[in-house]
Amino acid sequence: MADYRAPLKDMNFSLRHNARMEQLAQLPGYEEASDDMVTAILEEAGKVANEVLSPLNEVGDQTGVKLVDHDVPTPAGFADAYQQFSEGGWGSLQFDPEYGGQGLPYALSIPVMEMWQSANMAWGLCPLLSQGAVEAIFHNATDELKNQYLPKLISGEWTGTMNLTEPQAGSDLAAIRSKAEREGDHYRIKGQKIFITWGEHDMAENIVHLVLARLPDAPEGVRGISLFVVPKFMVNADGSLGERNDAKCVSLEHKLGIHASPTCVMAFGDDDGAIGYLVGEENKGLACMFTMMNNARLAVGLQGVAISERAYQHALEYAHDRVQSPSVGNKEAGPIIRHADVRRMLQTMKSITEAGRALAYDACASLDFAHKSEDAETRARESARAAYLTPIVKGWCTEVAQEVTSLGVQVHGGMGFIEETGAAQHYRDARILPIYEGTNAIQALDLVGRKTLFDKGEAGAAVQAEIAELISALDAQGGFASEAAQLKVALEQAQTAQAQLLNGAADDAQLPATVAYNYLMMMGTLCGGWQILRGALAAQQELASGGDEVFLNAKILSARFYVTQVLPRTASYAQMVAAGSESVMAMSDEQLASAWF
Amino acid sequence: MADYRAPLKDMNFSLRHNARMEQLAQLPGYEEASDDMVTAILEEAGKVANEVLSPLNEVGDQTGVKLVDHDVPTPAGFADAYQQFSEGGWGSLQFDPEYGGQGLPYALSIPVMEMWQSANMAWGLCPLLSQGAVEAIFHNATDELKNQYLPKLISGEWTGTMNLTEPQAGSDLAAIRSKAEREGDHYRIKGQKIFITWGEHDMAENIVHLVLARLPDAPEGVRGISLFVVPKFMVNADGSLGERNDAKCVSLEHKLGIHASPTCVMAFGDDDGAIGYLVGEENKGLACMFTMMNNARLAVGLQGVAISERAYQHALEYAHDRVQSPSVGNKEAGPIIRHADVRRMLQTMKSITEAGRALAYDACASLDFAHKSEDAETRARESARAAYLTPIVKGWCTEVAQEVTSLGVQVHGGMGFIEETGAAQHYRDARILPIYEGTNAIQALDLVGRKTLFDKGEAGAAVQAEIAELISALDAQGGFASEAAQLKVALEQAQTAQAQLLNGAADDAQLPATVAYNYLMMMGTLCGGWQILRGALAAQQELASGGDEVFLNAKILSARFYVTQVLPRTASYAQMVAAGSESVMAMSDEQLASAWF
Repeated sequence: MADYRAPLKDMNFSLRHNARMEQLAQLPGYEEASDDMVTAILEEAGKVANEVLSPLNEVGDQTGVKLVDHDVPTPAGFADAYQQFSEGGWGSLQFDPEYGGQGLPYALSIPVMEMWQSANMAWGLCPLLSQGAVEAIFHNATDELKNQYLPKLISGEWTGTMNLTEPQAGSDLAAIRSKAEREGDHYRIKGQKIFITWGEHDMAENIVHLVLARLPDAPEGVRGISLFVVPKFMVNADGSLGERNDAKCVSLEHKLGIHASPTCVMAFGDDDGAIGYLVGEENKGLACMFTMMNNARLAVGLQGVAISERAYQHALEYAHDRVQSPSVGNKEAGPIIRHADVRRMLQTMKSITEAGRALAYDACASLDFAHKSEDAETRARESARAAYLTPIVKGWCTEVAQEVTSLGVQVHGGMGFIEETGAAQHYRDARILPIYEGTNAIQALDLVGRKTLFDKGEAGAAVQAEIAELISALDAQGGFASEAAQLKVALEQAQTAQAQLLNGAADDAQLPATVAYNYLMMMGTLCGGWQILRGALAAQQELASGGDEVFLNAKILSARFYVTQVLPRTASYAQMVAAGSESVMAMSDEQLASAWF
Repeated sequence: MADYRAPLKDMNFSLRHNARMEQLAQLPGYEEASDDMVTAILEEAGKVANEVLSPLNEVGDQTGVKLVDHDVPTPAGFADAYQQFSEGGWGSLQFDPEYGGQGLPYALSIPVMEMWQSANMAWGLCPLLSQGAVEAIFHNATDELKNQYLPKLISGEWTGTMNLTEPQAGSDLAAIRSKAEREGDHYRIKGQKIFITWGEHDMAENIVHLVLARLPDAPEGVRGISLFVVPKFMVNADGSLGERNDAKCVSLEHKLGIHASPTCVMAFGDDDGAIGYLVGEENKGLACMFTMMNNARLAVGLQGVAISERAYQHALEYAHDRVQSPSVGNKEAGPIIRHADVRRMLQTMKSITEAGRALAYDACASLDFAHKSEDAETRARESARAAYLTPIVKGWCTEVAQEVTSLGVQVHGGMGFIEETGAAQHYRDARILPIYEGTNAIQALDLVGRKTLFDKGEAGAAVQAEIAELISALDAQGGFASEAAQLKVALEQAQTAQAQLLNGAADDAQLPATVAYNYLMMMGTLCGGWQILRGALAAQQELASGGDEVFLNAKILSARFYVTQVLPRTASYAQMVAAGSESVMAMSDEQLASAWF
């Protein structure tokens, strides 16, 4: 399998030009995030990713995990790698120094997180989930719980999980049945949770489960769900570990991908009931969980970028190595990278990956501005911007990751279908991304509903205004007339689609849900073009003052490729959205099965 | 795993209205292919597919195959199923009665072949390859070889394989190194072949390998390749089996999908050299192999339709079974099929599958007309039509099969990622289709090169004229104004793209290869729209004279859905083609890797 090499130049570039790192470093508390600091952090993280995690990716896939009694031994090397990660402080970059964090911008933690996911997505899910647990506790729990749990979670000595799904309750959280009963200062939790990522393992001394459950007197539906911290081992007052809690893994799923990531069926309270502690208020668990989910959604979008990068590097290496005979236009035998269609595939992979990276980093930076800016208006604006971009990052970056990893297989020809080659692993691993942390249908509904109809298109219009500004800047710069014109076409299609949605939803209740997916894909494609062209413009300006010519020219060419070979997809999505709900809803259930009965 | 139910109504409908079955039955020799006969054959084949092959699909995937010495025992039930297939005469439908075939139209064998591939693609590859071997021998070999090999291959007592690929020679057949030396009336073959589907197994008493190799004095490149029949067991003059030939399986590949289909590394002549018999002339092996490959390409396109159908049925069943809580607009709990986005996914799957089926059947029918029509002009026209449509069927139907099987996973949500659910198997199995029998890049090059530039767009223009005729017919029928108008837009885009290709290729040598993929996808999307609307028009006409209302209305609605939700993709492809080669070829090899060095 090809090694992973962290794309440090592009990460650094996207941080500076898309995530606005210079402005971020001026926010109070972020003064340390200088260019040098950023570069040093990325380089050091890159070494861990390239040298420690990447070599474990294939063996993890082949070995997988199995349940031994209630324990889950991880593949050889995984626990050591986790210890290096933890000791290096890699899990603490963006967290509050009060609890042992390093207080750096969230946006800076993003390329680092991307590296773990590129190097070894199955392993990388463990710290990804832990960060979500930190967020949920940090924003919602009492000081007592924070003091007890955050330092060890942030240091990485403990890991965290997210327990939402039950067999009858997936996207449909209203159907959750797990129960919690009050018992003095704590609760007793009973119920079964499924699809619990890293619910059990041997990489850390304790596991902190965040569990959604219902109180006996809770209202029905999602308004009757509460959130609890349920540790694997109880935590004594002095911070030492106590008794084993009644929370255990009873089975593991056999999955299409991420074989080394244990996907657990967790039994809470098979015996006396698991002891849990309330996070936030009773019956307000869903809102608490969402503080965790929103960041997790951005992180899953980022996983889409990460696995795309890995697949691209893999395919590029093969395209250099695989030699074919002389052919039309080539007198000598040579590598397949010289073939036009191979170049088309590689550049589709590359440009989509770069566009997704720029978009994801920028969305994450908005969260930093939303939290740290001293100006209330800026905070509100950036908060709405992050909220708007979150379903786009999660949905679009994970959808195109399917395409990119599939192209990665295709570049390998027949060898791509052979498991030992490794391209198929990326393809299999990537397939979870449109499903977990809210399926992409949920993301699309979030975008059209809460993020567009609910605010009457305001957040969307703000992003569109930024795109219009970029178009003017591209025109002013010169050299991008064609790109600016095509971005303008796509922008107008998006504006039309948004107007159609806003105007049509009142009369047609089915409209938002029927057009949601294509609407999300249109906005994603447009935002990808916006971000990659922001990069191209910056690259052009950097070139004028010297700089890395090969890299900067590649940024410009990648953007030009995106504009001609990816951005035109908005034309199709626009037509699909404009067609409305009729053709989607017209067919009856009976008709759907009418070909074989 | 959901059972498969052969979609007999749609198969029958597509045969009648897309494959022009009534006209086919008027060709000399095809008189027996009456409506009743067709219906009876489909029904009987459906029973075998539904009851015998489909239940073995999951166990085959889980068991897989392994090499024991040089033997490959197949999963439990596979050999029995093969015997039922063979005894039922299912491998002989379309072949010449002189060699034991049933002399039925090739087009009629196509839905039957589709059923095997839907029910169990891994198993179905064995008869698919055998049919290719029959074609190659029938069209190229001496009478002696035909008499010796065809009856047993056609009866299914023996199976056939196709041995092209070597480690250094995949798409690049010029690099083949396997050697053949003359020795009296036969040849001695030495060399290693890889990716040999069903190269060894225990389902039949003999295996007939068709092997490409080079004579000592052969010219370099593809003009120095000859084709040989190399049996696993020698065949005595009386037809009985003799000595074991020096041709054996030495290893099996560990693959992403089709686990139950042995993909063999074959060693020919590790000892004395394998005895082989020349098929066709020396050094003309590639042309002989192409008589086999062309039909095989249509069959692989059909596999795309077949696996799409299976994934659709699977997803539809889950969408009926999976219940969610009451939600906006739904007071009661109910199945997820009521959700708009689930319907969108299901109908995307259904309409693409039906469009692909109609297109594949029609292309196959052209081969029947090309072979059997009494009119030379018709033969020539239909031959060119089949040749033009072949790369489109292979390329487009297998590309969209990736999308359809992925949607099949997505409809299942988290369960889709769990192997036991079965949706993931279709997704994994489908991934080979864009790769084998000529990668889709090869198909795209064939379409733009041999099938468009070489004949100056004549075959393309003939298909476009048929589409224009349909547009007039839709307008004349009434009720399809919007569909006719949209098909017209797509047609004009295709005509423009063809003109751009024909006009631009002379000045820009890179143009054909850079636009080929998007050109193929545009033509496939257009042809899918053409064929599904041919069906809708016929359904409307059948409705007027009674007929199965539910099914016929579903055909019309499926076409309307395709027009609004799939056909608009041509707009994007058109723009990508129009953008030409510049952005694809501009980036240097160094720039492609510039993000991490």
